[in-house]
Amino acid sequence: MLQRLFTKCLISPKDIEPSAAGFEVVSTFNPGVIERDGEVTLLVRVAERPVEERAGWVCSPRYAPGEGLVVDWFEADGVVFQDPRAFESRETGNVRLTFISHLRVFRSVDGHSAEAGDGRFAPAAEEEEYGVEDARITRLGETFYFTYVAVSRHGACTALASTKDFQTFTRHGVIFPSENKDVLLFPEKLGGDYVALHRPNPRYQFSPPEMWLAKSPDLIHWGRHAVLHAGQSPWETGRIGGGAPPVRAPGGWLEIYHGNTRDPGGGVGQYVAGALMLDGENPAVVLGRTQEPIMAPEAEFERSGFLSQVVFPTGLVERDGVYQIFYGAADTYTGVVELRRDDVLGAIDVMR
Amino acid sequence: MLQRLFTKCLISPKDIEPSAAGFEVVSTFNPGVIERDGEVTLLVRVAERPVEERAGWVCSPRYAPGEGLVVDWFEADGVVFQDPRAFESRETGNVRLTFISHLRVFRSVDGHSAEAGDGRFAPAAEEEEYGVEDARITRLGETFYFTYVAVSRHGACTALASTKDFQTFTRHGVIFPSENKDVLLFPEKLGGDYVALHRPNPRYQFSPPEMWLAKSPDLIHWGRHAVLHAGQSPWETGRIGGGAPPVRAPGGWLEIYHGNTRDPGGGVGQYVAGALMLDGENPAVVLGRTQEPIMAPEAEFERSGFLSQVVFPTGLVERDGVYQIFYGAADTYTGVVELRRDDVLGAIDVMR
Repeated sequence: MLQRLFTKCLISPKDIEPSAAGFEVVSTFNPGVIERDGEVTLLVRVAERPVEERAGWVCSPRYAPGEGLVVDWFEADGVVFQDPRAFESRETGNVRLTFISHLRVFRSVDGHSAEAGDGRFAPAAEEEEYGVEDARITRLGETFYFTYVAVSRHGACTALASTKDFQTFTRHGVIFPSENKDVLLFPEKLGGDYVALHRPNPRYQFSPPEMWLAKSPDLIHWGRHAVLHAGQSPWETGRIGGGAPPVRAPGGWLEIYHGNTRDPGGGVGQYVAGALMLDGENPAVVLGRTQEPIMAPEAEFERSGFLSQVVFPTGLVERDGVYQIFYGAADTYTGVVELRRDDVLGAIDVMR
Repeated sequence: MLQRLFTKCLISPKDIEPSAAGFEVVSTFNPGVIERDGEVTLLVRVAERPVEERAGWVCSPRYAPGEGLVVDWFEADGVVFQDPRAFESRETGNVRLTFISHLRVFRSVDGHSAEAGDGRFAPAAEEEEYGVEDARITRLGETFYFTYVAVSRHGACTALASTKDFQTFTRHGVIFPSENKDVLLFPEKLGGDYVALHRPNPRYQFSPPEMWLAKSPDLIHWGRHAVLHAGQSPWETGRIGGGAPPVRAPGGWLEIYHGNTRDPGGGVGQYVAGALMLDGENPAVVLGRTQEPIMAPEAEFERSGFLSQVVFPTGLVERDGVYQIFYGAADTYTGVVELRRDDVLGAIDVMR
């Protein structure tokens, strides 16, 4: 792990009001992040759940077109929980979430404090009925594009939206069908193509999940899919996925990503962060990677929460030789750490 | 079920020689089918497995670049079989197949008999190391395009290839990353776009698998993904997926597809075939569907084999008011049935 120059729990559920009566904010986490107008704009995932509890029952919220948020109740005996985030029907095998997410705009001048703005991006389509999650923001020209996970009965897809002001948003539809998460757009065209990192999650797993690259002429249609031959360290054997959208660094594209350790018991391992260096012209080529995590849960707000032992980087801002990394902590909070750029780059070993 | 005018087991494993010493042909099934030069060309999936058996061990074949077919052995105690097709490591959860597939060309003048040709399409890339499976052929202009499942440690993707003569083939790479199968191309552009049916299979299932539509400007890059709101009958609650590439019929696009019944025990239900009518201009609109299967396992060669109780349609040829449907039977044989076109169309109820 690298020495942290600064660590702070930037945003907590108590900082905001729930979006609907009868709901409470569980989490404010996994922020999309972009620099603009000399400050940082965050698009923070807000997870909410119904306040009501009924003995012997569990519930799952849902966005219903024309009705808003509704709550479906299930007999507790008829479901199985894998972790606090989701349960599965014993009869059908179908998964439901215990919360529903939307995205809210926050502003931060220096990355050391943040205040809520009034922009929000909430479920508004059939493929978003179980929530919109985990924005990753990339500036392309004058427009801010963000990918987000759209969850519904049709699975967890990744969709694309754009905005110029974080007040009004344009939806561009599903770009990677279910299941696919952790989709990041590179901030410039390479060889005439838009490039994305993505992370398919297949039903039948012939190996642990992997990051892939895809290319596009127009951000809407994606192809030329190829596996990114990245990490195979023990701390990334369970899950892996892109974190912050890649940034130019000496030597190529720096990608801060997450991994977790496979739990043979089927539970969830600790989520940590690593770094990759991808070739500047052809990012399918992995030039180097960190053998050890650069960040792991340390602070109390990273070690304990809705899902404990999680640091999940989703955005990066560079300031005077320092990388500010914004991340979800314990699936509950938005955190920020500062790492020396030279420390991050120095921790990357040449790929053997 | 509809009355069959004709049923035949067209191709059996005994009809061909294995492709490598030490292997035996398990199955000749799931044929891609296309009419050309007044006859039918089939691209039949050939599944092979090592002849050798070792007490207390199981094996999985693999294509290794530069080496050809190699066999990996695993201690039987360390794996779990879900069905005869695949086992899973108890330690890692990773899946391996008990066979490896390639595609072979067959010719049929009238659909009532078939003979092996000499063309073949075999694993030749990293993403095909566990086999190439289930071609679906569509003519676009002078070129025959086929999608196929490319299986490897990276999962089960769908890739695209093309040919003009079924002797030499051009690979166009992965078009739908893992897991995605049953990808069919429509035989003409609609509204300026190429159109595909596809069937993502996500790790976390919020509902049973579903068919989706996607569009493309160039067959390589795909987007504008949308769920096809198709069947919800009991016989399609476990699996569903496109079968034969769609054909123009009175009223729209006729799609013959497969479904199976969810087995709450986690096993594999019976595979049957149904029919959909999709809008001729906008195939995302389902106009009608068969309430009951139009085909189910009846003949002995459909009821018993490597995986019993399977009819799995993959190609259709129209002749004088008759649909010849080519299909995999019991995951072992290639079968053909003939149904009256009017019977098929008459079985389709208007979608409510």
